[in-house]
Amino acid sequence: MYGYKGKVLRINLKERTTNVEPLNMEDAKKFIGGRGLGTKILCDEIDPNIDALSPENKLIIVSGPLTGTATPTGGRYMVVTKAPLTGTVASSNSGGYWGAELKFAGYDAIIVEDKADSPVYIDIKDDKVEIKDASHLWGKVVSETTEILEKECDDKVKVLTIGPAGEKLSRIAAIMNDKDRAAGRSGVGAVMGSKNLKAITVKGSNNKADVHDADKLKEVFSRSIKKIRDNGVTGQGLPTYGTAVLVNIINENGVLPTNNFQEAYYEDAEEISGETLAEKYLVKREACYRCPIACGRYCKVDDIEGGGPEYETIWAYGSDCGISNLGEIIKANYWCNELGIDTISAGATLAAAMELYQKGYIKDEELDGTPLKFGNADAVVEWTKKMGLREGFGDKLADGSYRLTEMYGVPEFSMTVKKQELPAYDPRGIQGHGLQYATSNRGGCHVRGYLISPEILALPEKLDRFSLEGKATWTKIFQDLTATIDSLGLCLFTSFALGAEDYADLYNAVCGTDHTAESMLEAGDRIWNIEKLFNLKAGIDTSEDTLPERLLKDPIPDGPSKGWVHKLDELLPKYYEERGWDAKGIPTEEKLAELGIAGEAMEPVAAE
Amino acid sequence: MYGYKGKVLRINLKERTTNVEPLNMEDAKKFIGGRGLGTKILCDEIDPNIDALSPENKLIIVSGPLTGTATPTGGRYMVVTKAPLTGTVASSNSGGYWGAELKFAGYDAIIVEDKADSPVYIDIKDDKVEIKDASHLWGKVVSETTEILEKECDDKVKVLTIGPAGEKLSRIAAIMNDKDRAAGRSGVGAVMGSKNLKAITVKGSNNKADVHDADKLKEVFSRSIKKIRDNGVTGQGLPTYGTAVLVNIINENGVLPTNNFQEAYYEDAEEISGETLAEKYLVKREACYRCPIACGRYCKVDDIEGGGPEYETIWAYGSDCGISNLGEIIKANYWCNELGIDTISAGATLAAAMELYQKGYIKDEELDGTPLKFGNADAVVEWTKKMGLREGFGDKLADGSYRLTEMYGVPEFSMTVKKQELPAYDPRGIQGHGLQYATSNRGGCHVRGYLISPEILALPEKLDRFSLEGKATWTKIFQDLTATIDSLGLCLFTSFALGAEDYADLYNAVCGTDHTAESMLEAGDRIWNIEKLFNLKAGIDTSEDTLPERLLKDPIPDGPSKGWVHKLDELLPKYYEERGWDAKGIPTEEKLAELGIAGEAMEPVAAE
Repeated sequence: MYGYKGKVLRINLKERTTNVEPLNMEDAKKFIGGRGLGTKILCDEIDPNIDALSPENKLIIVSGPLTGTATPTGGRYMVVTKAPLTGTVASSNSGGYWGAELKFAGYDAIIVEDKADSPVYIDIKDDKVEIKDASHLWGKVVSETTEILEKECDDKVKVLTIGPAGEKLSRIAAIMNDKDRAAGRSGVGAVMGSKNLKAITVKGSNNKADVHDADKLKEVFSRSIKKIRDNGVTGQGLPTYGTAVLVNIINENGVLPTNNFQEAYYEDAEEISGETLAEKYLVKREACYRCPIACGRYCKVDDIEGGGPEYETIWAYGSDCGISNLGEIIKANYWCNELGIDTISAGATLAAAMELYQKGYIKDEELDGTPLKFGNADAVVEWTKKMGLREGFGDKLADGSYRLTEMYGVPEFSMTVKKQELPAYDPRGIQGHGLQYATSNRGGCHVRGYLISPEILALPEKLDRFSLEGKATWTKIFQDLTATIDSLGLCLFTSFALGAEDYADLYNAVCGTDHTAESMLEAGDRIWNIEKLFNLKAGIDTSEDTLPERLLKDPIPDGPSKGWVHKLDELLPKYYEERGWDAKGIPTEEKLAELGIAGEAMEPVAAE
Repeated sequence: MYGYKGKVLRINLKERTTNVEPLNMEDAKKFIGGRGLGTKILCDEIDPNIDALSPENKLIIVSGPLTGTATPTGGRYMVVTKAPLTGTVASSNSGGYWGAELKFAGYDAIIVEDKADSPVYIDIKDDKVEIKDASHLWGKVVSETTEILEKECDDKVKVLTIGPAGEKLSRIAAIMNDKDRAAGRSGVGAVMGSKNLKAITVKGSNNKADVHDADKLKEVFSRSIKKIRDNGVTGQGLPTYGTAVLVNIINENGVLPTNNFQEAYYEDAEEISGETLAEKYLVKREACYRCPIACGRYCKVDDIEGGGPEYETIWAYGSDCGISNLGEIIKANYWCNELGIDTISAGATLAAAMELYQKGYIKDEELDGTPLKFGNADAVVEWTKKMGLREGFGDKLADGSYRLTEMYGVPEFSMTVKKQELPAYDPRGIQGHGLQYATSNRGGCHVRGYLISPEILALPEKLDRFSLEGKATWTKIFQDLTATIDSLGLCLFTSFALGAEDYADLYNAVCGTDHTAESMLEAGDRIWNIEKLFNLKAGIDTSEDTLPERLLKDPIPDGPSKGWVHKLDELLPKYYEERGWDAKGIPTEEKLAELGIAGEAMEPVAAE
């Protein structure tokens, strides 16, 4: 079947064996690829109750059928595993070039099992797969590891690696690829670290992807590109100012979380905006594999330069920590990338620490003379380094804000859902987006269904952000569509301009499938349900479909969203109903049968 | 004055001295910067009659006032010197990041004098400038040299270097920066080689350019970006398909030079088009410093990957050599970049060699079993390598098509103006563009005034490409505007969307000047005139303002421009008149006085 390579690489690190298995094409068709297929494999192969950092967990790295093809943004891969941060399914998505290169080497997915007895890396060159010693790389930052491996393996090899944070099992550690792209969330880097796996290099020689219908693809490609370029967000905002174009927009709506969500309007937003970034620090735009948008930034401040920062990083380290010094935020971002930490969780954990400090829980004597005070820009750079290295108090920061605040007996200061830090939008002023936060299958997350699109950006149409009307329906549609896009191997940013029918057309042209907009959404629904089933079996019950108490009870104190709280109680039952689940948020037998997964994911096969 | 750094770095390689001199601000205002200012310095400091490859020649590397600022595409630098290929002034322009970094280090320009007694490179870190031994780099290709210097000097250093072709004084050698960006034309790489100068590394710590009016700049920036994104060429064509978007467009107009300009329509154009490039080989788009367009391609074929190819490369190695194998063209492009050769002159020289072979001048026994036959794709890759290394018959190719064809007594087979190979547009079907070719101050060139814009792309308005009406006027305007843009430090591609008033606004906002559209064009006129004066003094008289005989006498044999020749005789007198020159094409005293350069550039100061 076109698009897919039909091969899965299974690597057992304890046995040091590598095997190529045929891709289960029935699963591939049903769950598309990427996130969907990875979750199916995870459900089939691991017991959801295992410890995420035990050898029993598996690391599934999986591309989509459109990864490495001539589709706009077709270069993404997913990391699917049980998440150390949340205990849920983790599916962290990244761009760059590594994912496409995996396809060029001839594989749809890699399944990494067990644990090596000493640090190793995996070197893949088409059919040649080797497990190599990585003791010389252990402890090294991401750029240095990448450069050493480029020399060691081959100049043009693509490198996926963890930094010191992953080695030290930080539950907010990321997996990095191509130096500055991150499969950032849920602590997937710690799973790699727990397996003594430092890196995976890949070089593939076949980038001529055969497609089912080349003429049809050309036509759909042209149409998609035109939509992307003509769209205000993907054709103007993102290319010009990067994701940080959102800083001013979100602040003007009074939903830019400030000082650990104690406020939602930041006076100095302009100073940390995409516009200021472009004016003062930008060196160049960076594009991932075949991306027509090129939202990536590459910035320079003093003697530091590198990829980013993204909007999420700027918010977490900026307004949420009360910091308006964009130069220092760039430095903190640099260290997150080098050490391999998720910038959202890292910044938000520092913000939580600042609230603990503000309210007297954390004492000066714990902080080596660098107080974690809202607005202290030097502190965030310093503490980011120590967090990534687990040095001093940094050790307490390294597992995220939930575990930190719990140590001080006030987990309510942790602005998390399912222990994962919330992203850059205060849900009190964006009701649909808040529902999405609460119900996300991987915890606090903005990319499991980006309701900001209709509620703030008016795409595909403008919804009243304070109204509850129709939000359950919209949330389900956005969640399902997102699951589809993540599974195809495309970037979610295309969805500002493209709709389900465009994705169906792209998929059909490349792979010869006969999807419609409806069947694409149904596939997303199916994927969403097996994720939910995994979580339920892992003991994540629906009591965790909630938001931090602050957001449900304390009205936003000031600004354009003043006075609002999130009305989850009213929305949640409607959402469960919309999903065809019971009142407790459990998928019904009927629903699962309708999706063709009745019972299928309910009985996990024991780990091999 | 804002924008400028006010400092010129003068380096004497024989004496091994480095000195910082104040920038002559009067000259800077009059000649803007970049190309204009560089030419003024060249006129002041060297005798135009010297041998371009002698120590008396100087290498002037100069940024514009907008280089390294927050302006769209503000990252370019010029190499100004006497050209080994043409004997005219050379001013070769390049993007990437090196130019901006030079500004960050605090310099507007570098003047390199004399010759080192052994291979050296120059290492610039802000105020610290060192001349270092380069014997370990001599003979190395561009990527390897760059990587060694990145390690040796600093991870984030920007590298400008020559490849083996420059070392071997090839008159078509380029200067490369950031690995795959080229100051490509006129053999400027050979000037570096003749000075035993392998590379210049630069790292600057100050990228916060102060500007005269930040608010005004923001406004002009936003307006310019919007124009660029809304424009069909800069907002759709170039970002999506790169410069190779032109292959099909130019071919459909019947002006795609084929088989060394023997024809002007290529049957297999689709196979070498930007569309096919995007479909089969594209990995990513690359953006130069602060570029909103990102026309750069990065492609992969088999085990070769790298920057490019551009339209000009694809044409020269493709239709002009009768080659439809785009994969092999990518490989040839790769070797041009690695060896440091101009892809236009290299491809066109191979095309000339193919005509010599076709007509029996070059014999099989000269060619080591790799015949230079139109359509022989393997041959172009092979002979490109040998050309860059001056191996075997490659030695005869290495100085361009004029010197090659002259050896065989048929210089009329060389499709050059002033000995420099013509680019990818047959002037017989584009009368204005042909006039521009003939009168270009650096010989055969498409970027000294791109009449393709109105004559083919209908920007800013559609001109009848076969008509002579108004073409002298348009040519002068385009030439003057181009001189201005090159001098500001911006990319010419902005001019598809921006006009003289936009450039004036950008310049005024950054530097506090009070230019109008008219005064910008007048500055361009002034720059054009001093270039002309340099050439006249160098003995390049107006008899060289011509086109290859073939284009004046032999009608295009087939395709949409069938039957046309170029009518230079009719256009040239009008052009001279338009310029305010006499009938022999010599600038009049009145014209020079009007431009404020009466006599100024007429008496060159002897080289120091």
